[in-house]
Amino acid sequence: LPLSERALISTIAKAASAARQRQNLSPKDRKPSLIAGIGDDCAVLRLPAHRDLLVTTDFSLEGVHFRRDWHPPESVGHRCLARGLSDIAAMGGEPNAVFLSLALPAKLQQAWVDAFLRRLLRLAKRFGVTLAGGDTAQSPAGVLADIAVLGSVPKGKAVLRSGARPGDLIYVTGALGGSAAALEMLYSKHKLDPRNFSQHFYPEPRVVVGKFLRENNIPSSMIDVSDGLSTDISHLCQESGVGAEIWRDVIPRAKIGKKQVEPRLALHGGEDYELLFTASPGKRVPSKIGEVTVTCIGKITRVKRMFISDKNGRLSLLRADGWEHFRKPSAK
Amino acid sequence: LPLSERALISTIAKAASAARQRQNLSPKDRKPSLIAGIGDDCAVLRLPAHRDLLVTTDFSLEGVHFRRDWHPPESVGHRCLARGLSDIAAMGGEPNAVFLSLALPAKLQQAWVDAFLRRLLRLAKRFGVTLAGGDTAQSPAGVLADIAVLGSVPKGKAVLRSGARPGDLIYVTGALGGSAAALEMLYSKHKLDPRNFSQHFYPEPRVVVGKFLRENNIPSSMIDVSDGLSTDISHLCQESGVGAEIWRDVIPRAKIGKKQVEPRLALHGGEDYELLFTASPGKRVPSKIGEVTVTCIGKITRVKRMFISDKNGRLSLLRADGWEHFRKPSAK
Repeated sequence: LPLSERALISTIAKAASAARQRQNLSPKDRKPSLIAGIGDDCAVLRLPAHRDLLVTTDFSLEGVHFRRDWHPPESVGHRCLARGLSDIAAMGGEPNAVFLSLALPAKLQQAWVDAFLRRLLRLAKRFGVTLAGGDTAQSPAGVLADIAVLGSVPKGKAVLRSGARPGDLIYVTGALGGSAAALEMLYSKHKLDPRNFSQHFYPEPRVVVGKFLRENNIPSSMIDVSDGLSTDISHLCQESGVGAEIWRDVIPRAKIGKKQVEPRLALHGGEDYELLFTASPGKRVPSKIGEVTVTCIGKITRVKRMFISDKNGRLSLLRADGWEHFRKPSAK
Repeated sequence: LPLSERALISTIAKAASAARQRQNLSPKDRKPSLIAGIGDDCAVLRLPAHRDLLVTTDFSLEGVHFRRDWHPPESVGHRCLARGLSDIAAMGGEPNAVFLSLALPAKLQQAWVDAFLRRLLRLAKRFGVTLAGGDTAQSPAGVLADIAVLGSVPKGKAVLRSGARPGDLIYVTGALGGSAAALEMLYSKHKLDPRNFSQHFYPEPRVVVGKFLRENNIPSSMIDVSDGLSTDISHLCQESGVGAEIWRDVIPRAKIGKKQVEPRLALHGGEDYELLFTASPGKRVPSKIGEVTVTCIGKITRVKRMFISDKNGRLSLLRADGWEHFRKPSAK
């Protein structure tokens, strides 16, 4: 059954309110408290003193970021929020509130919306995030979502992209290329069981790892791997005014079943939502944080170009080739 | 010429940076300062102590909220931000930062984007608002924008929808129905000169008025008239747990040329972005704030229903009939 916009607002407000009660949202010292949420012109939040506010927004557009014939509604809801949580993680922050703008086609089934929201709210709950507002509309074409995630860090402690210095080592969490490998199989008309391709369908935002790194003053700069390793390193280098040398053979590659993905997928494939960070060579960086591995994959250079070493240690230029390469416009 | 997504990000970042320099954004005591903006995973904002944070998000979707054959890009850019500023105004707040998520069709002209951004940033500048981040994507269908506006109010001073009490008088700023009148003419295939229909094409968010009212402790509750007077009163009544009696003959009607719009447009037409507020009968409410008139149009009642008085003072039930009535799905 299609939803009128008012019914949709009411569905979302009820789901959010129920989720909030289950969370028993008590204003703790370091968390913003929600004074007014859905049902007013604005949400009103009170940020504790000594915290900086983090804000990120991310589109999830049908035909661009997902396809309804490829992605079950649960995956779309999860990925929609995971993108924003990963941005907060990349600052070393803690996520606190999400605003969901959601436009739906007139003919969409209520069951689709319910599954989408349920899974989005489940992820929100795991990270203590409140659905605090948003907007709804009828969509002119497909499911269109945009989320704004608000988070916070202790004053002056946000980890920026701009802090990498020559000589710093480059690290990445987890393994790369799993999401792009699934995407290539989807393009090749494979039917995938989402449970076997969780890095693509249900990526895990590295909020806990990002916070651990920041609390231990480890990273000089940080970014999440959303556009592809080569492109995200280039962002980091550009903002820091430095270059990088990447060691191809040590890049941790995701496994599909028992097989590692191809090196090009680990190097250029996007949407893995791992963390990429730099640390001065004097820092002790753990090789595991919780269950998440941390791998040193290169170093920052003064020369403002990117190089990659081949099997024989020879360096060649590395092009930022993620993202615009993989996000085909034909994904409509 | 079409824009690649990276070129678009760069265009927006440059426009935002230029606008910021012109504004000479100095961190004043009561304004959040922007520690990091476009070019990192999140924007980092520092909110002064003793302020609460306001957040609102608003879609502007082609075919739903505007049509490119009806609305010039300047109007789309202005309206896109004005919706959010009006929400901040309705809390008695001051707007501070905007995040723009913008998806564009592959074939869109650069000139369209430039004009859209220029006018959005002009409105932002007038209200001291910084473009602090957002997202970009290729659009599967038409121009899709979503803005998040952040603002602030002194702690505990946000004017909510829920404060109306029986006996309070109901006030509205400016005149109503001008936007819906223009919309009806557009539906009837009239070509309109935007300069003669500014309430529709370039609505003025009542930020200064909202702040004045809050600073003088006048409103018991407030909302902006975006969905249509009848619908917005119903929102206010619902959140406050009260009813209302509206006096039809005193509702201020907008003028098109020298002619007042029809009463039904003033009563149910949306997108005027005036402020609707209640005040206890003991409050002195000015009849003008700056150049903006303030009109008393009814009173809050204990009975949780809405009534409207006709010419002879007879009361009849008032239905919330704005918005979903006027926002025809055929506007594609």
